[in-house]
Amino acid sequence: MVITFCCTDTKPEPWLAGLRAALPLARVEAWAPGAPPADYAVVWAPPQVFLDEQAGLKALFNIGAGVDALLQRRLLPGVRIVRLDDAGMSVQMAEYVCHAVIRHFREFDGYEADLRQGRWSYRKPRIRAEFPIGVLGLGVLGSRVAQALRAFEFPVNGWSRSPRSIDGVRGFAGDGALPSFLAASQVLVNLLPLTPDTRDILNLANLSRLRPGGYLINVARGAHLVEEDLLALLDSGHLAGATLDVFRTEPLPVGHPFWGHPAITVTPHTSARTLRDESIAQIAGKIAALERGEPVAGVVDPARGY
Amino acid sequence: MVITFCCTDTKPEPWLAGLRAALPLARVEAWAPGAPPADYAVVWAPPQVFLDEQAGLKALFNIGAGVDALLQRRLLPGVRIVRLDDAGMSVQMAEYVCHAVIRHFREFDGYEADLRQGRWSYRKPRIRAEFPIGVLGLGVLGSRVAQALRAFEFPVNGWSRSPRSIDGVRGFAGDGALPSFLAASQVLVNLLPLTPDTRDILNLANLSRLRPGGYLINVARGAHLVEEDLLALLDSGHLAGATLDVFRTEPLPVGHPFWGHPAITVTPHTSARTLRDESIAQIAGKIAALERGEPVAGVVDPARGY
Repeated sequence: MVITFCCTDTKPEPWLAGLRAALPLARVEAWAPGAPPADYAVVWAPPQVFLDEQAGLKALFNIGAGVDALLQRRLLPGVRIVRLDDAGMSVQMAEYVCHAVIRHFREFDGYEADLRQGRWSYRKPRIRAEFPIGVLGLGVLGSRVAQALRAFEFPVNGWSRSPRSIDGVRGFAGDGALPSFLAASQVLVNLLPLTPDTRDILNLANLSRLRPGGYLINVARGAHLVEEDLLALLDSGHLAGATLDVFRTEPLPVGHPFWGHPAITVTPHTSARTLRDESIAQIAGKIAALERGEPVAGVVDPARGY
Repeated sequence: MVITFCCTDTKPEPWLAGLRAALPLARVEAWAPGAPPADYAVVWAPPQVFLDEQAGLKALFNIGAGVDALLQRRLLPGVRIVRLDDAGMSVQMAEYVCHAVIRHFREFDGYEADLRQGRWSYRKPRIRAEFPIGVLGLGVLGSRVAQALRAFEFPVNGWSRSPRSIDGVRGFAGDGALPSFLAASQVLVNLLPLTPDTRDILNLANLSRLRPGGYLINVARGAHLVEEDLLALLDSGHLAGATLDVFRTEPLPVGHPFWGHPAITVTPHTSARTLRDESIAQIAGKIAALERGEPVAGVVDPARGY
């Protein structure tokens, strides 16, 4: 069995060593043009020429939660694409989002600014019941984030394409329910997959529906957000601020208005990182399951886009 | 029935209105010298003269989690002291501590410093399993904090005077177990009551036992910490930093070395605030229970100090 590793921006050696240790009977190699065709491939944004060569592929493992970059490539019909279904990402995402929500809700930036000016300030506590948080997208990551926020007793709204039930979360489903979901939310957390349907979904019309003084946390993909619409809503005061981990162009270009914007916290796409050891264990387990003819979780429906 | 409100640094009117609404048959007044003796008193750091006048008191309600300030006063023998047993404080404490832990674990300050210099940085993710967090004190607040940290999959150690069992938390109990508890912890969260036994417990000997690169979060009382010992351990590099919400003198005096210290995050005693409406509801409920002869939670043992 040949397993080929073909990941842009990723050092191959530790992955090769890990996959070889986990699957001693497989031949595991980094891809180079003209390499033998693979039975399984582990990829991140692979070049088109690699995909064109893989006529005998049984499955393509994407080492990230989002497969939008992969689905932009031309794929052989019927190839099975498998995404990481958690591998230590959901806890990181819960951590990142809870940190951003608490930082905003508890006004820690405001306290720090006061202290920098030597002021030992008192701020009237915000009322938790008046701080509903809307989680857009209730997949593996969104569900975990919604549950983590519930543990801090925030009212939580959840929106998904098809109905999902999560304990303690007020559910909204389908396009028709999006306006009422947004109108019921003070903080919006975006965890949607990027598909033609969701591209630019964080636009003027939708973000305007958030409650006045609303706050945006985007941890999905930069192309979900119409950046100038966010800036306009911050300027008008309808939105109070944003925490953004993803951008239309990464790294964020020099001179971009998000750099140093007083109401925007920027992080360099670090909200949920692919953890190598966890990912290798998951991929190796799934290859073994597929070889035994068993189903695996995380198989992508290319028509749906995730 | 007379209920007297005697709280330093607290505007009485909203409390009086709330208590009157909750207990319409009671006479609820703010204390002034010579006021009629109270059946019940609601206090925060009351003057000694107030306490000396209260011969007929059935119970003294402290509007905070810690009763250390009250126990420094001379009290009539046998008076029942009741503290707030939660009233919305534990969720705030969980929020504050999780925010501080995540901020440190995920290196958000480092990313922000990099970005301020225009650097789109990559930092190798820290390994959660190598980041055990020790919670010192497992009362209402400490237990809630320990459980909140478990939800983010950190290894959690808990220390208490007498054995306590919390799901998923490695328990240590009694003075003899303190050194091994500290040696097993990378981050130390202090949530002890302040008593003669715990004063100065965060000293050079104890803080030195934390794992190298350790981190301190003090959300209990300033007098738990020997401030110069923390500074020495930050200077030596044994500790990486601290988040401090409480101080020996509050507000933190002008010129104190904690102001602007690069490794110390200061907040102005804001980790868990007394929420008025929740506290009034709790106190009114307990007065009604005591009048019916029922037991109430949160009765303080003055000999123990909490």
